[in-house]
Amino acid sequence: MQKLGKQTIKFDNPITITETCSIVGPKEGEGPLSKYFDKYVEDEFWEEKTWEKAESKFIKETVNSCITKSGIPSNTIDYCFAGDLLNQCISSSFGLRELAIPFYGIFGACSTFVEGMQLASVFIDGDAADHALCAASSHFCSAEKQFRFPLELGNQRPPSAQWTVTGSGAALLSKNGQGPFITTITTGKIIDMGIKDANSMGAAMAPAALDTLVTHFKDTGRNPSYYDAILTGDLGHIGKEILMELAETKGYNIKNNYNDCGVLIFNKNEQDVHSGGSGCGCCATVFAGYVFNMLKQKKYKKILLIATGALTNSTTSQQGESIPGIAHAVSIEV
Amino acid sequence: MQKLGKQTIKFDNPITITETCSIVGPKEGEGPLSKYFDKYVEDEFWEEKTWEKAESKFIKETVNSCITKSGIPSNTIDYCFAGDLLNQCISSSFGLRELAIPFYGIFGACSTFVEGMQLASVFIDGDAADHALCAASSHFCSAEKQFRFPLELGNQRPPSAQWTVTGSGAALLSKNGQGPFITTITTGKIIDMGIKDANSMGAAMAPAALDTLVTHFKDTGRNPSYYDAILTGDLGHIGKEILMELAETKGYNIKNNYNDCGVLIFNKNEQDVHSGGSGCGCCATVFAGYVFNMLKQKKYKKILLIATGALTNSTTSQQGESIPGIAHAVSIEV
Repeated sequence: MQKLGKQTIKFDNPITITETCSIVGPKEGEGPLSKYFDKYVEDEFWEEKTWEKAESKFIKETVNSCITKSGIPSNTIDYCFAGDLLNQCISSSFGLRELAIPFYGIFGACSTFVEGMQLASVFIDGDAADHALCAASSHFCSAEKQFRFPLELGNQRPPSAQWTVTGSGAALLSKNGQGPFITTITTGKIIDMGIKDANSMGAAMAPAALDTLVTHFKDTGRNPSYYDAILTGDLGHIGKEILMELAETKGYNIKNNYNDCGVLIFNKNEQDVHSGGSGCGCCATVFAGYVFNMLKQKKYKKILLIATGALTNSTTSQQGESIPGIAHAVSIEV
Repeated sequence: MQKLGKQTIKFDNPITITETCSIVGPKEGEGPLSKYFDKYVEDEFWEEKTWEKAESKFIKETVNSCITKSGIPSNTIDYCFAGDLLNQCISSSFGLRELAIPFYGIFGACSTFVEGMQLASVFIDGDAADHALCAASSHFCSAEKQFRFPLELGNQRPPSAQWTVTGSGAALLSKNGQGPFITTITTGKIIDMGIKDANSMGAAMAPAALDTLVTHFKDTGRNPSYYDAILTGDLGHIGKEILMELAETKGYNIKNNYNDCGVLIFNKNEQDVHSGGSGCGCCATVFAGYVFNMLKQKKYKKILLIATGALTNSTTSQQGESIPGIAHAVSIEV
C-alpha cells in the first residue's frame, strides 16, 4: 500500500468485493431501487416480537445470505466487522452471535458500513485476512423509538427530517478476485461545526462529508470528473444541496456526477420521507443492492462512496450539545 | 505477520507500546492501584455539568496527556481507535472531536480497549500507520444511569454485581520503539451460553474469556506458564473463579499466574464493590496504569491481557434475551 497524505491509503493490490447482499423493509421495497435488493419483507417485525429482534434478523439473514451467495465457506472467512445504530450495537451482536467468525464491533453511526470496508481492506492488504465480512443495519421503528418519539404517537416530522432505512447490507471482501476493487480509502476525522438541530442531520453531517471529499481529492490528486459517480451515505435532499454548495466554495464542482444514497432509496414525492433516507442501513443497502449491481454491469466503472455519520444521540441533544459528524470514503473501480 | 490458526496473528515485527496514560475517579484513586494511575480526580463530575460530559472529559484528557507524555507530535499519529459504553459511544466522539486525527469508533463493550489495540496493531504491521492511539472510557454514574437505576434511588446491588470503573485509559502504539511489544493478538468470537442474569456479568462473560484463552494457547502452542501474568478485563471475583474452573476442565491450570483487572482495581473488603470493577475503563486504566508500569520495570516480562465484553443492554434484558460475550486477547512481552 501507499499512504497518500495523512488520511488516504492506496492499495497496490486492490481489494476485491466478492459478493454483497441487501435485505430491506416494505417501504424500501416500494421505492425506486426495489429491484436491486436481494429481498424485501412485507412486515417491519419480520415475524419477531420486537423491532430490535427484527433488526437483528435483518443483519443475520443478510450476512448469511451474503456468505451463501459468495460460495466462500464460512470457516474460511477471517473476520466480521459490523455495527448499527442501536444502543450498544445490539442488532449486530445479537444478530451475528451464531456466526462463529472472529468479530469486531464498530460504531460510526451511519458511516459504519464504509468504516467496516476500510478496516477489512487494511486487514486483507496486510495479510491478516483472506476474506472479511462487513455489515450494518438500521430499522425505522427501532430508531424512531430510541432516538425520537414513540411511533404510536404519530408525531409530525419537520421537512428536514430523514427516514431511517429498514434493512441491512453486507459485503464480503477478499484478497483475490475479479473485482469490483476497493482501490483507495480515505478515513474521516470528527468534524463538529456547531450545528444543533437534531432534525437536520444532513446539514450536520455535510461538513464532515466535505472534509473527507476534499481530503480525498487532495491526497489522490484526483478530481470529481475522475469518478462516474460520487455517492454520499445519507445526507438526504437538504444535506446533498449543502454539500454541492460547500464543494463549490472549495473549487470542486460535483454537480454532474454526485448523488446521495438517502436521496436514491426513496421517491421523495410519493413516499412522504421528507429529506430522504438515513441510517446505517441506507448506505449499506444502496451500495450492496444498487451500486454493486451497477459496478458488476460496468455501468459504473469508478465510484467514490462517502458514508456519513452523525455521532450524536438524544442525551447529547438534551444536554445542549452540537452534532459531531464523520465521513469515511472508499473508491471502488472495476 | 503469521496467521496462527483461525483467530491469532503473530507479528514478526512486534508492535511497540510507546506510551500510556490513565486518569481515574475518586473511588479508583482510593484503591490499591492508586499510585500507578497518572491522575485521579476527587469529583465524579470533574467540573462538568453532567456525567456524560465528565466521561468525555476523562477520555479527552487521557488521550491528550498520552500524546504529550509520548513526545510524538499529534500530527504524526495516523489513527485513533476509541469507544465506550455510552449509547452511540458519545463519550469518545464528543471527548475526541477536537483531536483532528483520523478516527475509527469501535464497540466491544468492556473489551473495547483491547479491540482497539488489535486493530491498531494490524494497521501498524500492514504499514497503514506508524503511530496509532487506542482509548476507552467508562464512568460509574453515567453507566448506572444508563444501564441500571437512577443513582438517587440508592438502589441495593446484589453481591454478584460489579462496580463500573470511572476513568479512561489510552495507549499509543508505534511501528518502532523499545517495547513493551505486542507480539500476538487473538480475536474473539461472540459466545452466548444462555446466561440471562444482568447482575452477574462476570459469569456471562467467562465462557467468552475461556474460548479466547484456550484458542490462544492452541493457536500459539503456548501454555499458561509461558506468561508471568494472565489478566482478564473485568470478570470480577465471581467470573474469575468461574474462568479458573472452566480452564481446568479444558486442561489448563491458570491458578498460579491469573488475575482480573476488576479484582485488582478495588479493595473488595474496604470498598464495597461486591464482585469487583467493570466497564471499558477497567481493563484500560489497569493496563495503562499498573500493568504497563510493571512491564516497563520488567517485573512482568510476558503477559496475556484478555479484555472481556458483555454485548448487552437493558432493552435486550427486558426482552428476555441472554447475554452474548466476547473476549479479545493481546500478548505483550518486553
